[in-house]
Amino acid sequence: MNDVIGAGTALSDLPLREDLRGRSPYGAPQLDVSVRLNTNENPFPPPEGLVADVTASVEELATSLNRYPDRDAVNLREDLAAYLTGATGVTVSAANVWAANGSNEVLQQILQAFGGPGRSALGFEPSYSMHPILAAGTRTEWSPAPRRADFGLDGAEAARVVAERRPDVVLVTSPNNPTGQSATLEDLRAVLDAAPGIVVVDEAYVEFSARPSAVGLIEQYPDKLIVSRTMSKAFAFAGGRLGYLAAAPAVIEALLLVRLPYHLSMVTQAAARAALRHARGTLESVQALVDERERVMRSLRELGFAPVPSDANFVLFGPFADAHRAWERYLDSDVLIRDVGIPGHLRVTIGTPEENDAFLAASKTVSEEISQ
Amino acid sequence: MNDVIGAGTALSDLPLREDLRGRSPYGAPQLDVSVRLNTNENPFPPPEGLVADVTASVEELATSLNRYPDRDAVNLREDLAAYLTGATGVTVSAANVWAANGSNEVLQQILQAFGGPGRSALGFEPSYSMHPILAAGTRTEWSPAPRRADFGLDGAEAARVVAERRPDVVLVTSPNNPTGQSATLEDLRAVLDAAPGIVVVDEAYVEFSARPSAVGLIEQYPDKLIVSRTMSKAFAFAGGRLGYLAAAPAVIEALLLVRLPYHLSMVTQAAARAALRHARGTLESVQALVDERERVMRSLRELGFAPVPSDANFVLFGPFADAHRAWERYLDSDVLIRDVGIPGHLRVTIGTPEENDAFLAASKTVSEEISQ
Repeated sequence: MNDVIGAGTALSDLPLREDLRGRSPYGAPQLDVSVRLNTNENPFPPPEGLVADVTASVEELATSLNRYPDRDAVNLREDLAAYLTGATGVTVSAANVWAANGSNEVLQQILQAFGGPGRSALGFEPSYSMHPILAAGTRTEWSPAPRRADFGLDGAEAARVVAERRPDVVLVTSPNNPTGQSATLEDLRAVLDAAPGIVVVDEAYVEFSARPSAVGLIEQYPDKLIVSRTMSKAFAFAGGRLGYLAAAPAVIEALLLVRLPYHLSMVTQAAARAALRHARGTLESVQALVDERERVMRSLRELGFAPVPSDANFVLFGPFADAHRAWERYLDSDVLIRDVGIPGHLRVTIGTPEENDAFLAASKTVSEEISQ
Repeated sequence: MNDVIGAGTALSDLPLREDLRGRSPYGAPQLDVSVRLNTNENPFPPPEGLVADVTASVEELATSLNRYPDRDAVNLREDLAAYLTGATGVTVSAANVWAANGSNEVLQQILQAFGGPGRSALGFEPSYSMHPILAAGTRTEWSPAPRRADFGLDGAEAARVVAERRPDVVLVTSPNNPTGQSATLEDLRAVLDAAPGIVVVDEAYVEFSARPSAVGLIEQYPDKLIVSRTMSKAFAFAGGRLGYLAAAPAVIEALLLVRLPYHLSMVTQAAARAALRHARGTLESVQALVDERERVMRSLRELGFAPVPSDANFVLFGPFADAHRAWERYLDSDVLIRDVGIPGHLRVTIGTPEENDAFLAASKTVSEEISQ
């Protein structure tokens, strides 16, 4: 680093915000391992037709890359609305939809509009670890409430905590990451009835669940409910970075006040639209992954593990006396899973049948070592 | 809107942050007009080779769109560093470079890391109107200081104001948008010497200027100076949304603490790399635009207007008794320019020779109407 300009200056020499000092960047290790089951991606590559369609769409737009994109991404939002309408049975319009570079940016914009300094956001933990980080990034006070010991959401208790603390924003992840269970509509109604402000239902993994989406509740709670989603998981589009949400049109008007202009590139808009045109083909992998999830859970049980019931494309399992040490043993077997910081547990993404076999073989080794 | 779910709820029904109430979304009107000279885009479409290269790059990556992108965008940052090294003569490394979805996101991340509640950012106005909006979005107090009456930056006076107010972040736009002049290195040194914290030199338009880049000052001010840039202007890549910065490696470490993980999609990274491979071809348009700028300024003077000297791909000009009314008259002639809110002035982007001819013809009409 000696010939790198400015390399003599350390982070501690900079006038960094005090609350950021000593922190580490968010992110799972990106390691060069044969079997990567750590970030809940869809393991099946996009179908050939999608690749051809994305390529053709980009070729067509590339001649106008010198121009700014449609700032309001109207065509993309129309396509997302059509997908949501088909998937949920609720008639969703483009005016109900907003999109950004991944659901992280969607959630950041929600917290910029409805959270921020002097306001608070409540989540039921353990849950998606980016939620408190996004709260910190927008200077929203983070107010964590516990889930049940089995990681399920207790609707009545959740409503009680929300009524007591009166957070400006409530985040409910359903299916919950990293534990896997969905909230029932009854649970969500209890939270919505109790909430004084915004309730975000984070449905990043909803396509893997048989439970109905919260989108059906927007009509009843238009001034409270936002349902966020992503194309990163079931849609096999993690590399394309497209998150979106459904809500009353007024919510989208609010987000227009905080979004960065032209936040979604032409290429992102076109690639996402191409991916949506192939939704049926891509989502065929969902049932295969659900079947694999059930197989992996059965096998884990046979090996003496206790997997947590999951509605998503991952399984939290244990028990481990030392979860991090167990994580390292999986890595020794060339299998990368995720230590999500829940004592005694690790999370595995459901991969291809071959990847799951490799994971289960490694699990057998780990279970034998543990029982020695 | 009657059948749109939640359409009965108004923005005023939502628990929006108080400081956002009554605001309008940022953005120039996106109107369907023949001659669009309002957002400082490069009017020349990307060369054919670039289109082919972007397309081929996207085709190659599309088969792995189900995977997350490289979170740290290392290859792209290496390519940007190589470009900066060639363009400035300063040896810039990937460790000196950071990239995001447009320079707006770069600046937002800088303000998240070094600004925020209880901190302030100072800019010399009139300048890029997103700067105070980004400050508001990150809850950084905005501290505007005036430019000289001729819109130039008075280095000594700027240094005095900075020393007096002690802002956490200083923003210097050079060349300045919407007025066109560059700061000299001597001016920048004066501001850097006076600044207690971070100084961002926003070089969005630097390729159009003959003055040396501030990148050469990073070695001398590693704990203060950040130089932000964009591929939206000279690079003819506004639709691709790629902003970047050069600074000491510790600054990039700081930004890793506030960036959203996987903020740059695979497609954006690949398309930007393809565009960089064709930098020489694309940047050939810069000299043509500079020549056109000089022609437009001469013609405006001949028509009785007073254009402000410009180092960029746009010209601020006047005087108008009623600038907004004059803007409307240009629109009547099917020419869209920008009312940037500076009394008596309008800003025109330098377009193709044909577009500039259309603008000058409209200017003749407007000048005749004004003198009647």
